[in-house]
Parts: sequence; structure tokens; C-alpha cells
Amino acid sequence: MENYLKNIEKVNIKYYEKAKDHIDFLAKPLGSLGELEEISAKLCSIYNTLDVNVDKKAIIVLASDNGIFEEGVASTPQEVTAIQTINILEGKTGVAVIAKQFNVDVIVCDVGIKCDISHPNLINKKIRKSTNNFAKKEAMTRQEAIQAINVGIELVNKAKKDGYKIIGTGEMGIGNTTTSSAILASLLGLSLDEIENVVGVGAGLTKDAYNKKVNLIKNAIEKHKPNKNDVIDIIQKVGGFDIGAMIGVYIGCAYNKIPVVVDGFIAIVSALCAIKLNENIKDYIFLSHKSMEKGYILAQKEIELPSYLDLKMRLGEGSGCPLMFSIIDASVAMFKNMATFDEAKIDTKYLESLK
Amino acid sequence: MENYLKNIEKVNIKYYEKAKDHIDFLAKPLGSLGELEEISAKLCSIYNTLDVNVDKKAIIVLASDNGIFEEGVASTPQEVTAIQTINILEGKTGVAVIAKQFNVDVIVCDVGIKCDISHPNLINKKIRKSTNNFAKKEAMTRQEAIQAINVGIELVNKAKKDGYKIIGTGEMGIGNTTTSSAILASLLGLSLDEIENVVGVGAGLTKDAYNKKVNLIKNAIEKHKPNKNDVIDIIQKVGGFDIGAMIGVYIGCAYNKIPVVVDGFIAIVSALCAIKLNENIKDYIFLSHKSMEKGYILAQKEIELPSYLDLKMRLGEGSGCPLMFSIIDASVAMFKNMATFDEAKIDTKYLESLK
Repeated sequence: MENYLKNIEKVNIKYYEKAKDHIDFLAKPLGSLGELEEISAKLCSIYNTLDVNVDKKAIIVLASDNGIFEEGVASTPQEVTAIQTINILEGKTGVAVIAKQFNVDVIVCDVGIKCDISHPNLINKKIRKSTNNFAKKEAMTRQEAIQAINVGIELVNKAKKDGYKIIGTGEMGIGNTTTSSAILASLLGLSLDEIENVVGVGAGLTKDAYNKKVNLIKNAIEKHKPNKNDVIDIIQKVGGFDIGAMIGVYIGCAYNKIPVVVDGFIAIVSALCAIKLNENIKDYIFLSHKSMEKGYILAQKEIELPSYLDLKMRLGEGSGCPLMFSIIDASVAMFKNMATFDEAKIDTKYLESLK
Repeated sequence: MENYLKNIEKVNIKYYEKAKDHIDFLAKPLGSLGELEEISAKLCSIYNTLDVNVDKKAIIVLASDNGIFEEGVASTPQEVTAIQTINILEGKTGVAVIAKQFNVDVIVCDVGIKCDISHPNLINKKIRKSTNNFAKKEAMTRQEAIQAINVGIELVNKAKKDGYKIIGTGEMGIGNTTTSSAILASLLGLSLDEIENVVGVGAGLTKDAYNKKVNLIKNAIEKHKPNKNDVIDIIQKVGGFDIGAMIGVYIGCAYNKIPVVVDGFIAIVSALCAIKLNENIKDYIFLSHKSMEKGYILAQKEIELPSYLDLKMRLGEGSGCPLMFSIIDASVAMFKNMATFDEAKIDTKYLESLK
């Protein structure tokens, strides 16, 4: 992990500027394609070229269970982590069907599901079966947190070798809005009274269960005192293997100069962790949709990047990534295929009376 | 026109409900796919079936010139209407390259470009060469306004025959943010002081030119007194042929039970006109992106439909439609291909220790 973090390069701002110059010569009012213009210029700065190519795309889904589940913080049975992980692989879930529609591959990795799964397409990097219940003890060891991050980095190294040009992040882990809220509260150094600002209803909690979730997070932060300036310490104490691995995906993408799409609450909290580890990572990141989960807006404010889609989605799995890939495709189509003002001077054969 | 308006049917709410029932059985937390769920249910209500098919898509671009141009309300030369119309047909503009990327056809119709154009793929339904300068006299006759609307209806009838399942609207007409603002101010019955709330900077106006634009609209409304309760009267006095034809596209889509995507300021003003002519039309309409043009939000508030994309776009041409089609594709993929809870019960062969 350390070696990768040290060797992340800044994006090449010269290519951002060259791209903007090109875009300003395209036959349209200056700036009229708004964020589509920003997106392709940012892609050029990441890829170090004006010859951008985003043809091969994947979503990396990190699946893991969370010990905190046993405190009753989720509205869904724990075995759904395993069941839906397999359903993603079998093409049956939200992210699976949307990704297929958009010709996007889904790479699924088990980093800590609570049972043994053997599916031909599942990547098994299980650290162990579920984290600990952080209401009782630290979620994992420091070594395990680093191990999870390394899993994410390795997944991207492999994806790079396999020719993927852009990656999205997804997760499957019952209880992971609780871990994400605890991490976000720790990262932001929130006081106990402020913690409910980053806690949402997850997949659909009752009021009682919600209050319980808030209190569990408060108690855990009081108990473990995660160090707000040490991301690994936070992951170790109140995090999850899925989030650790996702942080690794962001590190791996920045290291490998691959743009990466953040989808949803768990993903944006992980992205914020990665950026705290190395601020250059931010320049490789695109947000996709505005999540309905309460802490999302706070995390977004920290990251200071726009989100482009407003679809009131809160499924997770990376289900918003394919739509963000579409926006990126539109941006690249504009960048590569629109006529410049020179090229837009038309053949007068079509005009009989325009002089 | 009248005959079509009279024969627009309400969408079938039973299919909306049946669709929602199906969606609630899909293996995901209830409501967690947000607007994707609403979109496919709405499609079912439009198509009168659960077997939705949106495979063949087109954007209908209405091109026309506006007499008000001669008052200096636009930052772009008038011949750009003709030039960009041809560039759309030649695949060179924003809408053209984005539509191609998404496998969407672009149908371009001349309803009033100021010069003669002969391009093999241009549909010529020219009413005449440009409207009148509404600073001096009414933009067109009542008969011409109705004729423009009929052009739009006929374009959809033809598209229906050609197998298109969903349509987006676009326009090309220098000066048409001015006509749109004048129409919107008239429709909303704004006082002269309120008019600047619906006037934007178009493709990029200076402060002086902007003030001139506001004053021209104020003066025209004072002079012609368009009847807020008579859409045709408004189009006749301060509208454009492109907007008239676009109103016809919305009427034609509702009549033919084809969902239609609204893209940008001119398109939303036209949609509002269509809805004033028959309120059932609203149920066939989807908004796409939030336009940067000032009056958009006011028009959206009237229409009371959500927009899903926030891309700071203000190009027009229908350039946002392909992205909205992608969202619709994602919604349909979810609706048709996701597993229900029953189907999501997994084969236990994959699980070795989950019991």
C-alpha cells in the first residue's frame, strides 16, 4: 500500500488545458456543453493524452459481511450479502442487469463474506469471514485493514492488465451503511451530537432501529477513539473489509492512471478515505449520482466534486456507475467527433440562397 | 390539430400500478432504485403493457429562423441556423455525435429556415422563410401557427410508422431563447417587472444585449397582448415555427402513445404550451437535464416533473436527449431483467456454509 500511495502521480494539467483549447474550438457556443466539457478535459489530464479511449469498462464490486450486523442495525438478513453476491455473478441484480445493458463488465470480489462461496466467476480474496462487531471490539486488526486495501489495489492492477480503461466501484455488504457512517463521523471528527447527521436509514430502517444505529456509532467512537488523522486506524476500528478494499481500488486507479467512478454513500466515504491518504487521488475520481443516504451530501462537500445524476437511488452495488459511464461516453463522443468551427464551415452546395 | 387534441387518451394507470407491483417484487430494498422505478412504471402506463420496448429511438430537431433576430437579441449570426442544420445532418454537431454514440437517429425538419436548403436527409416542411420580427408585427398568422403544429404532429405520425418507440425533441434556431422567453412570460401571465425572471443569456449575451432582450420582450407583450389562455394566440404573436412544430411533436407523441423526452429551455416551454392545450400530454413527457437557461426552473415548476441530469448544458439541439434515453434504457433493463425475490433464491450449490 505505502509504495503505491507514494507513487501516485498528479494528473497532467497540460492535457486538461490542451483539451479545453480543443473544446473551445468545437462548433458550439463557448462552454455550452457544461460538465461534458469538464469531464473530457479531466479524462485527458488523467490519461496524459488527447486520444482518450474509454471503451472497456468494469465495475468492481467488493462483497463482505460486517460484525456490527448482530446489533440489529440492518433491515435485511445477513445471508443476503452472500445471496446477492451470487446473484450479481448470475446477472440477476440491479447492477448486473444495468451493466449488461451498457456493455460494462462486473468484477466481483469476496473480501469477507461470512460463508464459503464457490462460484466460477467470483474472485476469492477473503480476509476472513466477517469483521468483528465493533460495538464489542475493533472491527479488524491494522494488518487486516492494510490487507483489505491491498486487495483493492491488486484488483485494479489486474484490471489494467486486462485492458480496462475506466472503473466504477460497487459493494455488497449488509450493515455497510453503518460502517460507512461511523467512518465518516470519525474522518470529519464529528462531536457525538453531530453524528446523526451522517447516519441514514440504510435499506429501510424503523425509527427505533435508526436510533439504535446512531447510538451504536456514538458508543463505538467513544469506546475506540479512532484517530481522525489516521485513515487506517479508523478502518481498523469501525470499518469493513469492503470499504478497505474499495479504498484500495481508488489508490490502484490513481496509481495506474485509470479514471474511477464513485457510486453511492459507501463508495463516497471510501473515496474520501483514499483522498485523505493521498490528495492527488481526487483528480482521478468522478462522482455519479446523488445518493439518497443522509451522509452523502456531507461527504460530497468534503470531496468538492459535482455529481451529475439525480435519480433518488439508494441500492448500492455500483448500480449508478453504468449511467455515469454513459455520460462519460457522451463527453468523449463530443470531444472526439464534433466538428471544429473550421470543419463546420459547410459545403455551400446545400445552401441555395444563403450568401 | 383539433382532432388530435380531442383524441389524446389518458395513460393507463392500471399498467402503472401493475408495473409498480412487479418492481416491488424485484430483489432489492423497496424503492431503492428511485426514479428508475418511476420511469419504467410510467412507460408501462403510456404503452398500455408491461412488455415495454424502447429499442428504436429518434430525436426530432425542428429548425427555423426568427424575425426578432434583426433586433440584435442573439450573440450568433443568423446564418448559423442553416449552417448548423446541415451540420446536424452531416453528423458534426453536439446532438449528432452524441446521438450516434447512443445509436439514436436524428430526424431534422426545416419549418422556416431563412434560406433554401437542399440536403438529401432534410425534411422540408418550411412554412416560410423566417417568422416576422415580433418587435414590429405579430410573428406569424394564426393559420401559420396551426400549420407549424400540424407539421410536428405529422412528423410523429411518420416516426410511429417507421417504428420509433420513443422520441426526443431538439431545435436549431438562432433567436429562439428570445421567443421562448416571450412565450413563457405570456403563458405565465407575468407582469412587465417579472419578465426578466424568464430571460436568460442565450448562447452568451453581453449585459447590454441582455437588457435589450428583456425590453424587447416587454414591449412586444405590451404591444401584442397575447392571450394567456390561448396558446395559439401566444405562438402567433411572439412564437416561432420551431416552437409551434415542437408543440405538435408533443401532441403527436401523446396521440400515438409514444413517450417523449424534453431537452432544454425551448423544449420545456413548448411542452408547457402543449400541456396547456391538453393536460393529458404531461403524462407522456419525461424531462432530461436541468438547463442552465434562467426560465427553465420556472417552466419546470409549472410542469411539475423531475429532471434527472445536472450537467450545466445549454447547447440545445436536443443534445441531452440521448443521455435521458440511457437512463430510460437502464430503467427498462431493471424492469425486464432483474430477478424477483423468488427468482433470487439462489442455488445452494454455491454456498458451502450458509444454512
